Amino acid sequence: MRVRQIALIGSTGSIGRSTLEVVRASPERFQIDCLFAGRQGETLAEQVRAFNPRLAGMSDPDGFRALCESLGVSPGAARWRSTELVCGDDAIVAAISESRATIVVAAVVGMAGLSGVLAAITSGKDIALANKESLVVAGELVMRRARENGVSIIPVDSEHSAIFQVLQGSPREDIDSIILTASGGPFLHTPIDEFGSITAERALRHPKWNMGAKISIDSATMMNKALEVIEARWLFDLPARSIEVIVHPQSVIHSMIRLVDGSLLAQLSHPDMKGPIGYALTYPGPRVSGVMDRLNLSKTKELTFLEMDNHKFPGVERARECLEGANGAPAVLNAANEVAVELFLNKTTPFESINVLVGEALSVFGDRSYSSIEELFALTEEVAGWTRQYAVGIRKCG
Amino acid sequence: MRVRQIALIGSTGSIGRSTLEVVRASPERFQIDCLFAGRQGETLAEQVRAFNPRLAGMSDPDGFRALCESLGVSPGAARWRSTELVCGDDAIVAAISESRATIVVAAVVGMAGLSGVLAAITSGKDIALANKESLVVAGELVMRRARENGVSIIPVDSEHSAIFQVLQGSPREDIDSIILTASGGPFLHTPIDEFGSITAERALRHPKWNMGAKISIDSATMMNKALEVIEARWLFDLPARSIEVIVHPQSVIHSMIRLVDGSLLAQLSHPDMKGPIGYALTYPGPRVSGVMDRLNLSKTKELTFLEMDNHKFPGVERARECLEGANGAPAVLNAANEVAVELFLNKTTPFESINVLVGEALSVFGDRSYSSIEELFALTEEVAGWTRQYAVGIRKCG
Repeated sequence: MRVRQIALIGSTGSIGRSTLEVVRASPERFQIDCLFAGRQGETLAEQVRAFNPRLAGMSDPDGFRALCESLGVSPGAARWRSTELVCGDDAIVAAISESRATIVVAAVVGMAGLSGVLAAITSGKDIALANKESLVVAGELVMRRARENGVSIIPVDSEHSAIFQVLQGSPREDIDSIILTASGGPFLHTPIDEFGSITAERALRHPKWNMGAKISIDSATMMNKALEVIEARWLFDLPARSIEVIVHPQSVIHSMIRLVDGSLLAQLSHPDMKGPIGYALTYPGPRVSGVMDRLNLSKTKELTFLEMDNHKFPGVERARECLEGANGAPAVLNAANEVAVELFLNKTTPFESINVLVGEALSVFGDRSYSSIEELFALTEEVAGWTRQYAVGIRKCG
Repeated sequence: MRVRQIALIGSTGSIGRSTLEVVRASPERFQIDCLFAGRQGETLAEQVRAFNPRLAGMSDPDGFRALCESLGVSPGAARWRSTELVCGDDAIVAAISESRATIVVAAVVGMAGLSGVLAAITSGKDIALANKESLVVAGELVMRRARENGVSIIPVDSEHSAIFQVLQGSPREDIDSIILTASGGPFLHTPIDEFGSITAERALRHPKWNMGAKISIDSATMMNKALEVIEARWLFDLPARSIEVIVHPQSVIHSMIRLVDGSLLAQLSHPDMKGPIGYALTYPGPRVSGVMDRLNLSKTKELTFLEMDNHKFPGVERARECLEGANGAPAVLNAANEVAVELFLNKTTPFESINVLVGEALSVFGDRSYSSIEELFALTEEVAGWTRQYAVGIRKCG
């Protein structure tokens, strides 16, 4: 088996660190060619020391200075031992294109990941995709570019990975629909009239997955499932109404497909992102042994299921509506949500306003279309600005 | 899509009738070439009128007379309208060999199914295998003949069908083990010291599946799972210790595979044999639409799991031991069990003696090997006779 060269975008985040654990455990299968991060220079410096990549890059100049300082080199040197050091988004995009990696792990959260993903695709590299926003805002474009360049997009989201895995043995004509499972987040059983008192601290405590802040809040609003519905629509080329969502608090069944004969096929495991990461890095196989602990269902004892409460968590239905409307609508939903979550984490907007802001943004911008990536970026900036202003309005009204 | 010609052995039993339901619902996919049954002449006559097969056969002469009488023809006529009528096992085996069917559904219970299965394989027909005894007593032989003749053996047991389905997308090197699910039968929660008072009527009431009498009793002793472990060993070419069993009372997950990375893949559906039958008849696809009702897990609400109690239900561990011993041992286990179940259904042996008889037969005959099908039949006859005698001894001792 050949050693697979990997470029990792977002190495200091939660998915990035799990990716490095998988790589560390199987040096005979994987090698790190490039590491890219945003701001956490000290953490990247540790990773550079541990993995000796050919190149490391930071998008933020302050982060780059921290990286160089931690490595004991001057920012002008642009090199630590055999590792080339680069700074800024343009340099990172160029480095991705020129990398000798055959797979790029896109583990950045938010729209920032899109340019890296497009650079990787255009330069013919497979994508292990943890950046759901790439598909949420520009799914049609990303999938078309992938087809044109003959690259595989292998999802790293646990739900989409599960579906990707069980689809392997199923011809297209056998598929009726897919069923995304949702943990339901920390407020599954919290009455909607208590949503007003939810603090950021409380929302960040997720019962099952240990994740980054943005994703934790998306889980608390179940907006993560809305984004996943959009992601699934593009990954698996299915209409919005063929993408079901079911609440499964144990997060053991990661998702399922429904076949025309009435069967379901499901993928199960401990909730451990090393599983989907390992699968994506090794696709189409063989899998890496022992990436996750063995699941003993007689210890899990029970798996339970509930219907989605679309009143408490309106995101999923909104996502389906977006997919049936103008091609800019999913980007509007995502941009408004990114701003709303940021404002909630900054304590300038209450929890219950997240859904309000997204709904209002959609009512204003939901019919917008785009035909180029520039128009798309302009639209999301417009929506983000509008959402910030609207949030100020909400605050003033009290 | 071409219409598939089907030969059905055991058409009047539970699986046989379900097969005919599947065929009736999709006349554009399936046609019945031959129907074979044992004793129920009137039922076969109804099926002949409904499906107009090219040929129909009964193994029992009294049954054949009942068939002819019901069809209003004389037993000497050997024909009803365009349907040829044959009587006796030899005529049935010849008819299977000469059938123009491309798939044979082997739905007979017990060792009686073996000769039909071998005739079908030798004449190059794929097998939809519901007769687990063929693999239990002669698994190595059956699978070797299937390979030599280039035919597929597609399991119809719901557990093995589930595994067969989820294995489709998984390369061999990714498989760690398979996990058969067991409903636990009607006595899962019955203390072992109450086993002495279990009547046949009570044992025949299965909580989840509506099945034939022999299989219902095998479910009550969990000997069905023992037979399934042996069946799985041959179908999937795995060592006995790579075949796990877990109790799952809802029978919604029909079985699973465990992959080396820690993932499980599972197949789920309503407990309805039309699913596995439809899958086997259409393999390798496309599946038939709407064979089973859509499964709504939020209505099922919960799936639970328990470890096997090997003390109360010793069959599964015995099956694994048989697979690690002489090649005749599984046939000994099966023959002793067939006799013990018959004696229990006849009310001449108590429920708790079934496991005793199987255990004693294994301690006497468990080291026997065979090298021809004749030796195998001689061994099973010897074991059956011995088991009957031993049961008389148990009764006398009270």
